[in-house]
Amino acid sequence: MSVKKEEIRENKPLRLVIKIGRHVFPSDLDSKIISVYAELFCKLRAEGHRIVVVTGGGGEARRYISIVRELGGSEFACDLLGIDVSRINAKLLITKLGDEAFPEPPSSLGELRKAFDGGKIIVIGGLQPGQSTNAVAALAAEAIRADLFINTTDVEGVYTANPKVDINAKKLDVIETDELLKQSLMGELHAGSYELFDPIAIKIVERSQIPTRIINGLKPENVIRVVKGEAVGTLVKPS
Amino acid sequence: MSVKKEEIRENKPLRLVIKIGRHVFPSDLDSKIISVYAELFCKLRAEGHRIVVVTGGGGEARRYISIVRELGGSEFACDLLGIDVSRINAKLLITKLGDEAFPEPPSSLGELRKAFDGGKIIVIGGLQPGQSTNAVAALAAEAIRADLFINTTDVEGVYTANPKVDINAKKLDVIETDELLKQSLMGELHAGSYELFDPIAIKIVERSQIPTRIINGLKPENVIRVVKGEAVGTLVKPS
Amino acid sequence: MSVKKEEIRENKPLRLVIKIGRHVFPSDLDSKIISVYAELFCKLRAEGHRIVVVTGGGGEARRYISIVRELGGSEFACDLLGIDVSRINAKLLITKLGDEAFPEPPSSLGELRKAFDGGKIIVIGGLQPGQSTNAVAALAAEAIRADLFINTTDVEGVYTANPKVDINAKKLDVIETDELLKQSLMGELHAGSYELFDPIAIKIVERSQIPTRIINGLKPENVIRVVKGEAVGTLVKPS
Amino acid sequence: MSVKKEEIRENKPLRLVIKIGRHVFPSDLDSKIISVYAELFCKLRAEGHRIVVVTGGGGEARRYISIVRELGGSEFACDLLGIDVSRINAKLLITKLGDEAFPEPPSSLGELRKAFDGGKIIVIGGLQPGQSTNAVAALAAEAIRADLFINTTDVEGVYTANPKVDINAKKLDVIETDELLKQSLMGELHAGSYELFDPIAIKIVERSQIPTRIINGLKPENVIRVVKGEAVGTLVKPS
Amino acid sequence: MSVKKEEIRENKPLRLVIKIGRHVFPSDLDSKIISVYAELFCKLRAEGHRIVVVTGGGGEARRYISIVRELGGSEFACDLLGIDVSRINAKLLITKLGDEAFPEPPSSLGELRKAFDGGKIIVIGGLQPGQSTNAVAALAAEAIRADLFINTTDVEGVYTANPKVDINAKKLDVIETDELLKQSLMGELHAGSYELFDPIAIKIVERSQIPTRIINGLKPENVIRVVKGEAVGTLVKPS
Amino acid sequence: MSVKKEEIRENKPLRLVIKIGRHVFPSDLDSKIISVYAELFCKLRAEGHRIVVVTGGGGEARRYISIVRELGGSEFACDLLGIDVSRINAKLLITKLGDEAFPEPPSSLGELRKAFDGGKIIVIGGLQPGQSTNAVAALAAEAIRADLFINTTDVEGVYTANPKVDINAKKLDVIETDELLKQSLMGELHAGSYELFDPIAIKIVERSQIPTRIINGLKPENVIRVVKGEAVGTLVKPS
Repeated sequence: MSVKKEEIRENKPLRLVIKIGRHVFPSDLDSKIISVYAELFCKLRAEGHRIVVVTGGGGEARRYISIVRELGGSEFACDLLGIDVSRINAKLLITKLGDEAFPEPPSSLGELRKAFDGGKIIVIGGLQPGQSTNAVAALAAEAIRADLFINTTDVEGVYTANPKVDINAKKLDVIETDELLKQSLMGELHAGSYELFDPIAIKIVERSQIPTRIINGLKPENVIRVVKGEAVGTLVKPS
Repeated sequence: MSVKKEEIRENKPLRLVIKIGRHVFPSDLDSKIISVYAELFCKLRAEGHRIVVVTGGGGEARRYISIVRELGGSEFACDLLGIDVSRINAKLLITKLGDEAFPEPPSSLGELRKAFDGGKIIVIGGLQPGQSTNAVAALAAEAIRADLFINTTDVEGVYTANPKVDINAKKLDVIETDELLKQSLMGELHAGSYELFDPIAIKIVERSQIPTRIINGLKPENVIRVVKGEAVGTLVKPS
Repeated sequence: MSVKKEEIRENKPLRLVIKIGRHVFPSDLDSKIISVYAELFCKLRAEGHRIVVVTGGGGEARRYISIVRELGGSEFACDLLGIDVSRINAKLLITKLGDEAFPEPPSSLGELRKAFDGGKIIVIGGLQPGQSTNAVAALAAEAIRADLFINTTDVEGVYTANPKVDINAKKLDVIETDELLKQSLMGELHAGSYELFDPIAIKIVERSQIPTRIINGLKPENVIRVVKGEAVGTLVKPS
Repeated sequence: MSVKKEEIRENKPLRLVIKIGRHVFPSDLDSKIISVYAELFCKLRAEGHRIVVVTGGGGEARRYISIVRELGGSEFACDLLGIDVSRINAKLLITKLGDEAFPEPPSSLGELRKAFDGGKIIVIGGLQPGQSTNAVAALAAEAIRADLFINTTDVEGVYTANPKVDINAKKLDVIETDELLKQSLMGELHAGSYELFDPIAIKIVERSQIPTRIINGLKPENVIRVVKGEAVGTLVKPS
Repeated sequence: MSVKKEEIRENKPLRLVIKIGRHVFPSDLDSKIISVYAELFCKLRAEGHRIVVVTGGGGEARRYISIVRELGGSEFACDLLGIDVSRINAKLLITKLGDEAFPEPPSSLGELRKAFDGGKIIVIGGLQPGQSTNAVAALAAEAIRADLFINTTDVEGVYTANPKVDINAKKLDVIETDELLKQSLMGELHAGSYELFDPIAIKIVERSQIPTRIINGLKPENVIRVVKGEAVGTLVKPS
Repeated sequence: MSVKKEEIRENKPLRLVIKIGRHVFPSDLDSKIISVYAELFCKLRAEGHRIVVVTGGGGEARRYISIVRELGGSEFACDLLGIDVSRINAKLLITKLGDEAFPEPPSSLGELRKAFDGGKIIVIGGLQPGQSTNAVAALAAEAIRADLFINTTDVEGVYTANPKVDINAKKLDVIETDELLKQSLMGELHAGSYELFDPIAIKIVERSQIPTRIINGLKPENVIRVVKGEAVGTLVKPS
């Protein structure tokens, strides 16, 4: 089913959810990479696509969270700080997008749905403790009935082993959600140096049959290629 | 560690999170069972315990969700309705609790934390699509740094097989969170006719080391017994 | 005055407020009748009309309210539950309307006015204790300066007696608001098995001179006919 | 029943709702009368009573509403301005009450209920178009399960005719709600130069059996007397 | 730089922020002058300009504030009342603007930015104690990246002395922000009988290089002339 | 007047507003200094004082703002980010304070006032663009009618010249607000390497006669000394 969707992709505007994380927001923030992504999103919007971008906390979140831990803060408090930093990242991207973007990151999925009708690019960060921004992205994709959910990482997709340490690691072209769920919980698959997908995100992709691709976000042009229907990265196929 | 906590339990007031679901809110709502639980919570409060009750959607939620499906609604829409019904359940319990309870179910964890300082019983339902009320309960336990998280079901605890169909099913006295997580994903453990715990709830219990017990909610007195330190049901031990 | 308005009706798009209640949301919810109404509203929108739909609590609200009473809840608590159920009904209709509708029932008249400018169908339920959804509908009509307020019931309009028990009951073609107010308070007029209009709703129709028709909602096509200017049901004429 | 309540009144703290209007907030605002009432409320609070004060729009509201009419505003717009002015009146009283009062007028009945638990004097104005501050007061009385609802006017209570023009007008000691409703709609009873009670307020007093007294607010000491159990003004007896 | 902007003004639609105060909202409110300004704003909108109007508290605010002082209220309480009155003034103007205006004054700058995207005239009052409506206007100009900020007063612009008492007072055609800041703090310049600009407003005009003109608001046509690029009043030139 | 207040200070609990900035939140966040201040605030609370702490954006805010500038963001956008970072700083302090603190930084002065009545330590950051956290602190002092406003910097108080570059710089024991205002605008006084006080903050201290001391925050014990009534740092005397 989703293959057909991909074939006709060039001919119609899509509803897109794109998750970006640490490779755009490293611990030493760099305005250049943010600007590259901003231009890319504007280009997609100019082509008629409707876009929700979800920003992770990135490297800064880690730094703040380590301070929270030093202060004796709970995991809940760590999550709250991580959400704040992801929202700051969202605002940095909004700053560059200017009038192309909804002026604030929505603070709930309900707000997201209302903002989405306005036609601007929506940039949203984390929402609630106990929930990664990957889960927010999957929920956003469900909420707007996205045609395509693109999740970026810092390698080419999902691998059979950690590609950074194992030269025999093989990139997968397709993986089913139940396999991805099992393996991610067992820690046998790899998608860069941090966890790619949390169980909730996978479950949501599965239950709502959301066409999903995991790609290398260090090559921003990959986003354009996927939107055009190219088989970049790893296709996550709902079971 | 948590064992020690249990030993000294009778001597100090506890911060409690108690999750109640379909056995209190079946599809044909029954005011009697709600009243029984209300009295039980008032009694615990009178003993000095501070209480957050989390209500599931129960049987009514299922009924509404089937209508949403008939109307072509998304899973997201189903979740939204389920949340609404769980909040109605919360309000029914609040009605019986009267002045003992905070007058409304909080609509976020932040609101919960502020309400908790007022000293009344807080009753809260679902919060967000993609998140079960079990996850809300675990997050609430984390947010208020609960001493004990009690999750009720309709059998005696966690079993090695479905106790309703397999006479050899054995109730476990203790289960570690990583085992619970693995088995719940594989579907080999049973805690009544519906899923007891979602992966997020388990992960949160684990990461915040929350002492947790799964008990039979059809016997409300079990709640009192657990609070007193009795080894009722199944202890979930953070790995 | 309002007669003239009716004559030219086919030629211009109208601002419509349509109240639907128990006949669309009976105690055993039926997705079919909801779907019929959803299609009807989409058709009206496609013709250029701007629409606010107000949903009552229907049969489910009564069921919940009886539980609240059993729990010793106040009338205030009953109203709160009735409002919650009316909002659930609104969401069911929104589910079927999909992208044609504003994604959530507004929670205040101020929010309604802002949402109305977006051009989608707005579905709203109850707002506040002490106020029926008929009053909400009249206020909504006032807030958006509606050209026509359609209130549906389960008989053909306003009768001189209860048409279900008195075979001599005569349907009225026109009734003035002051007569409707007096009679509804004395209980001498009938509009189906439950009260059609509360005093506040009548007062608002009167003070803002809102053209109003009471029709049989069991025949959904009546809504179309009234919008086209046919003299269906009973015209409520502001005194 | 309510008579018994009055007998034991001196011995227990009461939950009070007191409505004040144009006689405290005339078109030329006078800080003295506001101060007199503020002291009176502080005194009642010091005696242990819990108090909600509802402020009407008074004379200033009328002035603003006439401007709205000149600007071609709807009745809805008039009501919105009236609410704003009643809230300003509430803030003036709060200013004088200082730390004895909740710092802001609640903007909904839900907020009122939460604020009430804090134990301070709550001052609230209007809430929604189509609803007088008398209705707000009755709803507030219902929401907090008031023991006594005191509504002040500028004559001694409810009369058989307008006491300002008819020397034969007789003050009633007791009136039942259904009689008050009927007569107020027919315009045969009088309680000063403006309408005392709207139909919704009367209905709420009736349905929740709220002990209610209408007294002369030009004599502030009347409030104290009623709280002590004296039979001042007119008792409104729920039918 | 800003001069060039002025030259090409007639050929493109502008983003305008216009501050109006006591001359439109004197202590005895007059619907005529409000109507004149409403028509003027509609005309500008019809020409394609996008407009934010900021309303001061005017004469009514002063009256209310004197009551707050009599009641022993703090300066903070005075500011709160002033804000309320400025918002009422905003609503009066919105009433006349009808469908041309966003239906409510935004209550924060974030809300203003979201409302601005809808294309209607936005009318906003005060926001926070310690901040004049002149500062709100400057911040609004910054928030929407205004092309022109027009501040109206009751004389022809900024003078070297009080033009109402000193016949040698000379109107300035241009003043730089640092000079305006210095002089306004020293009290040597005059712009009518009340302070024209607060330090924060001036600082914001300076830091964001907002082209700003101070004109005589008693001649509403001045607004049109400035928008067309005429050198009316005093140009405030960011240093 | 304020001198007398200081004399009797040891004998009564005070309402305190304490502003902390870059010396507690440098660009490389250090949990130790945050912890020192947290303990200090807990100690003051244990002595009965009621405390509002206002956190500046500190060094991190500067870092973020430079990124906003690189992205072409407006001054308004810079301020928004600065506010976010100041709120994160507030949350870090709240994390350490645990149950002693209100669980979130209030997002408005109205919320602050309501939270203050709960008796916990309130930690608040920035509120609105165009307003420094020094202004927030002064407004908070006004809102809660503070007995003492302590503003910390990184030198001993206000100097006649920059003490870091001019060895003849003399610390002032007392300075009047009008002098402070004039000099701060002219840049002749010094209070460390960044501006101590903005004009709005000074104006508010003056208009509400708030006893204010500027002290060296690098020596946290100074806070205790000032609260005890010692003449540490520079007294700002309202003119």
